[in-house]
Amino acid sequence: MKNVSILGSTGSIGTQTLDVCRNYKDDLNVVALACGTRINDLAKQIEEFKPELACVATKELAEELAKLVDNKNLKIVYGMEGLIEAAIISSADIVLTAVVGMMGIKPTIEAINAGKDIALANKETLVCAGHIIMKLAKEKNVAILPVDSEHSAIFQSLNGEKKSQLRKILLTASGGPFRGKDRAFLENVKLEDALKHPNWSMGRKITIDSSTMVNKGLEVIEAKWLFGVDATDVQVVVQPQSVIHSMVEFEDGGVMAQLGTPDMRLPIQYALFYPDRKPIANSEFLDFYKLGQISFEKPDMDTFVGLKMAYEAAAKGGNIPTALNAANEYAVALFLDRKIKYLQIYDMIRFAMDNVRFIDNPTVEEILETEQEVYKLLKENFN
Amino acid sequence: MKNVSILGSTGSIGTQTLDVCRNYKDDLNVVALACGTRINDLAKQIEEFKPELACVATKELAEELAKLVDNKNLKIVYGMEGLIEAAIISSADIVLTAVVGMMGIKPTIEAINAGKDIALANKETLVCAGHIIMKLAKEKNVAILPVDSEHSAIFQSLNGEKKSQLRKILLTASGGPFRGKDRAFLENVKLEDALKHPNWSMGRKITIDSSTMVNKGLEVIEAKWLFGVDATDVQVVVQPQSVIHSMVEFEDGGVMAQLGTPDMRLPIQYALFYPDRKPIANSEFLDFYKLGQISFEKPDMDTFVGLKMAYEAAAKGGNIPTALNAANEYAVALFLDRKIKYLQIYDMIRFAMDNVRFIDNPTVEEILETEQEVYKLLKENFN
Repeated sequence: MKNVSILGSTGSIGTQTLDVCRNYKDDLNVVALACGTRINDLAKQIEEFKPELACVATKELAEELAKLVDNKNLKIVYGMEGLIEAAIISSADIVLTAVVGMMGIKPTIEAINAGKDIALANKETLVCAGHIIMKLAKEKNVAILPVDSEHSAIFQSLNGEKKSQLRKILLTASGGPFRGKDRAFLENVKLEDALKHPNWSMGRKITIDSSTMVNKGLEVIEAKWLFGVDATDVQVVVQPQSVIHSMVEFEDGGVMAQLGTPDMRLPIQYALFYPDRKPIANSEFLDFYKLGQISFEKPDMDTFVGLKMAYEAAAKGGNIPTALNAANEYAVALFLDRKIKYLQIYDMIRFAMDNVRFIDNPTVEEILETEQEVYKLLKENFN
Repeated sequence: MKNVSILGSTGSIGTQTLDVCRNYKDDLNVVALACGTRINDLAKQIEEFKPELACVATKELAEELAKLVDNKNLKIVYGMEGLIEAAIISSADIVLTAVVGMMGIKPTIEAINAGKDIALANKETLVCAGHIIMKLAKEKNVAILPVDSEHSAIFQSLNGEKKSQLRKILLTASGGPFRGKDRAFLENVKLEDALKHPNWSMGRKITIDSSTMVNKGLEVIEAKWLFGVDATDVQVVVQPQSVIHSMVEFEDGGVMAQLGTPDMRLPIQYALFYPDRKPIANSEFLDFYKLGQISFEKPDMDTFVGLKMAYEAAAKGGNIPTALNAANEYAVALFLDRKIKYLQIYDMIRFAMDNVRFIDNPTVEEILETEQEVYKLLKENFN
């Protein structure tokens, strides 16, 4: 029996994680659930999974939640303090961090300090604080298990292999809904178009990030930290069918790849049960006879400059990946609110990377300050 | 330093193995070389690699070889007795068996008995005597490392995984030069056409076997033994580009694959250096940006009945895979001599499988008797 704390339980990854827990009741025990504001969903989850602890965004929501649930043994907490309490809860063996945004960083660090293994679905943790997280995880002898489909595929492909014999990482990308389009086309992209991902069903923010390829850029930076390579050794390969979830190439020319259907429960399960694999309820298997073909392309980084800027951010290091990420978060929120045009997402990232005060080797506080600085910069300069 | 004995050193696999040994002089030391009749080639190999022992097919060839080489420390042996001596030579750590045909069986068994690891490139060993070999290897705690590109890919894909979680093996096939053709087309196939393999540069016999898909059928039977699965759990997937060298599917729907350029030195090196990978001299890496696409098809077993018959032989077991293999060897030799038409290869296999005396769980002697019985049957019934 493995005890699991889930940070971000009402989101896309969170609910799929609970689906896995539901299918493996004898193997996985949910000890803590944390969400932001969706307390009705959370109340149902509490009823089903009976955690010891639940966390929500604010005191008010915590009080509302208390009225919704009938469980005297449940402790309800809130805010960043509460999120950290859920992350370090003594009964947990593993913490799945699927909260969105930079608020994932602190609880992850505290969970590592508390010796918990981490199933990591929060991109910002490594993008912004990879230099802190990976060092600390090594010190505390804690496993960082990727939940992202691509990083899980890379992790699986490295199974039984020696990292010293790795030549490069081949990070696959669907190319998003605008693959093959030019900059002129992107000028006029509408929200509805950007929300149509060809293969994966995901949250709204990540679907936009996928269309701009900023998501793939963030994954390049994550891969750099997760697998201890230079970003230049992470090659993005566009493969529109999303059948190959990523690959690694070794010194002997051998390439190991992980393939599968687009079911996020596979990487979730893999992280929770690693190194074991178990059947996934109601899942489909790849049928190579029906698959037809897989094709490969070079990403168009001149059009999808989000990816190019991510490589640049990875090379510059320090707080520049944080600036890229914060600017993207800010811009995508505006785009989702129909306040800016599609290409302004890139403009805002560019501006933030060029104008933020550079900090080499930033602390967590400096990372969070950078985020605020970027928000302020963009607010002042884009109207 | 690993000491290597190479059985079949002048063939395609043998010379490529020596190329690997040449590139890794400090890691691999050649202690024995065995070939059939190409003594001029062998003499050059002896001069370069200075083995302790050399083996040829006959006493006469041994005497001729002695005149060709100027090495007082070299012991020259011949025939099956000599081949076994090369297989069990005390200095060898690993024996690479790349001899063609059933003569590979006995030396492999003796090498396992002597505690040598086996780098296996001889198909007949497992096709005909898999039930003996795998049991013995387990008893003697000896590794059977596949040198075949496909089986090496499967072996690599199983790295770090648990076999109990394996769902099926996906054995890829180029489909050969006649993929997409019908039976009427195969009626009139000429030797020259059958010798043109689309992707791999191999010996004549195996190139024909690839065109008939009998080779793929033999590989299904090999995979059954090597990985301890039913032949029905080995699914052949036609993938004309030969980029994916084979795959395995696990219970969770995850598929692990090994990809690479068509360079046999990769599986050879992998077997010799397992679990390490090392650079291959003058080799090319896959370039996914230039690759274009990989396509998948179901094999046409109604046209390429060689594959269908192999599944049948695997299901029947006993000496039936031996009958299939012997009939194929006999028929292909005649086809290479322009003595029979292409489809008679299938006819002869069918006849042999239907008419040979069935022996369940055959001994090595009974396997070799089955081979002779098949030759006799075919000689008497096809003229």
